[in-house]
Amino acid sequence: MNKILIAGTLAFDQIETPFGKSEVIMGGAANYIAIAAAQFGVPQAVVSVVGEDYPQAFLDLLRARKVDTSAVEVVRGGKSFFWSGRYHNDMNVRDTLDTQLNVLADFKPVVPEAFRKAAIVMLGNLHPQLQLDILAQMDHKPTLVVLDTMNYWMYHTWDLLQEVIAKVDVITINDEEARQLTGEYSLVKAAQRIMAMGARFVIIKKGEHGALLFHKSQVFFAPALPLEEVFDPTGAGDTFAGGLVGYLAKSGDYSFANMKNAVVHGSNLASFCIEKFGLERMLSLSEEECNERLRRFAELTQFEIEVNT
Amino acid sequence: MNKILIAGTLAFDQIETPFGKSEVIMGGAANYIAIAAAQFGVPQAVVSVVGEDYPQAFLDLLRARKVDTSAVEVVRGGKSFFWSGRYHNDMNVRDTLDTQLNVLADFKPVVPEAFRKAAIVMLGNLHPQLQLDILAQMDHKPTLVVLDTMNYWMYHTWDLLQEVIAKVDVITINDEEARQLTGEYSLVKAAQRIMAMGARFVIIKKGEHGALLFHKSQVFFAPALPLEEVFDPTGAGDTFAGGLVGYLAKSGDYSFANMKNAVVHGSNLASFCIEKFGLERMLSLSEEECNERLRRFAELTQFEIEVNT
Repeated sequence: MNKILIAGTLAFDQIETPFGKSEVIMGGAANYIAIAAAQFGVPQAVVSVVGEDYPQAFLDLLRARKVDTSAVEVVRGGKSFFWSGRYHNDMNVRDTLDTQLNVLADFKPVVPEAFRKAAIVMLGNLHPQLQLDILAQMDHKPTLVVLDTMNYWMYHTWDLLQEVIAKVDVITINDEEARQLTGEYSLVKAAQRIMAMGARFVIIKKGEHGALLFHKSQVFFAPALPLEEVFDPTGAGDTFAGGLVGYLAKSGDYSFANMKNAVVHGSNLASFCIEKFGLERMLSLSEEECNERLRRFAELTQFEIEVNT
Repeated sequence: MNKILIAGTLAFDQIETPFGKSEVIMGGAANYIAIAAAQFGVPQAVVSVVGEDYPQAFLDLLRARKVDTSAVEVVRGGKSFFWSGRYHNDMNVRDTLDTQLNVLADFKPVVPEAFRKAAIVMLGNLHPQLQLDILAQMDHKPTLVVLDTMNYWMYHTWDLLQEVIAKVDVITINDEEARQLTGEYSLVKAAQRIMAMGARFVIIKKGEHGALLFHKSQVFFAPALPLEEVFDPTGAGDTFAGGLVGYLAKSGDYSFANMKNAVVHGSNLASFCIEKFGLERMLSLSEEECNERLRRFAELTQFEIEVNT
């Protein structure tokens, strides 16, 4: 089974939605990614940093899922990364209320020895310099490097971000960010531009409107499951990425045809993530629930048309 | 082969998009519906009204496609319905610049004798009273009544619109209108409410984000084909409806499973409609082009996951 190395934040979040306000809860990209990927029972390690205020119980939730947390630095007297945000009726839009980098400001990532040959490196949304530092520590080029990023790095670290994109195989990005990154309104043209920057696969996430996978001239679309209610979209993109890499690591097949399946698995897991605040739903998710919903995905999208030729 | 009776406007349109401005061109829901449905070679009639200014050549384009236009009233000295609108970068939003009802204001629809037993009645966007008048003239309940409507009728003729919805089998409506009609933000809940009003099938059109088909507790999603450019969305919804009823009339199968296929055919035709101004692309469309793009739809959406049970 292929190993996954995950770089990303372990954090405290506080979230407001039209349905209510959460406590200060467990958050951060690396948590969402690792807990989603753990559905596939694959060996993972997280490279991250937390403060002394970060509960041991949160790390234990990862360890219980076979996630190596030896490369999570705990900074004495430091405070963990904190984010708070507010969603409106249109859950595709959110306001950031507060971001406190805290220990993340001086983070020097160290890839654990046992994961320097990992087949998959999942670079969660972080400063592009940290993402480059991670890649530089790998023994050789991983089979698949997957990048998540955001508009902030496009504004502030454009050159570094371009350097990262040139080194990755897959980029996951939302629709507005894809437009900002390329100056193209059309997502088809935006994806082509991003492939020209170096990524072989481009996944454009459209929130409730699903996700598009581009590779060369091919395109695949996975809808989001139509739900009665989106309770909290926080972490949906990271959960999608976790499902993607978890499934790919388990199957060891990196073809376009299998990447389609990986996108469906990612969408499937994301559809659970948004049902409750933060990681709550993901932490109670069973394999049976996953499989039942995969069948709903198939019913939702599969049809039978005979094309006259 | 089942017959289709179409009620809707035959009009002049003038359209502005970020790509340019059209002349005054052939438009109106009935034109888009009939020309799309004609791809399936089914017998159709259009009930509509035009002024003396409406070119014979436009009606000839319908007749050349086996569309009975004997129930298109030509009002001596009258002017045809005129609409002009402007689209922005987000083609899901448009401003109406001008609407001139003209001869439509006094329209008294008469269903032609040969179509009073039509299996399918397609009620294009019109005053709900006209839609009721059409249904009242049918010899018996058609196998399938399909309704298109818009927010204007929700504001101005709420009770009449409810009366129509109670009599139809399928409603096609866009996402914002579905929310207005029901007061529900969630499209899943909105669809459930509309089914409670009487429609057995609810199709919610999300423009570039595809279309959702609801029936009882079942749901199907067809994406819009990701295109480099949406040139002009005018008529895409009517073309979708035309493809839907055309395919259903040809196949004579009104099951949910076949309704899925009909939604894919509708989406397929709509993807051509938006490539040029007005009806230009639809009038030059070949069966080979349709079939080639149906295969792209299959590639776009079909995947192969084995679910462990």
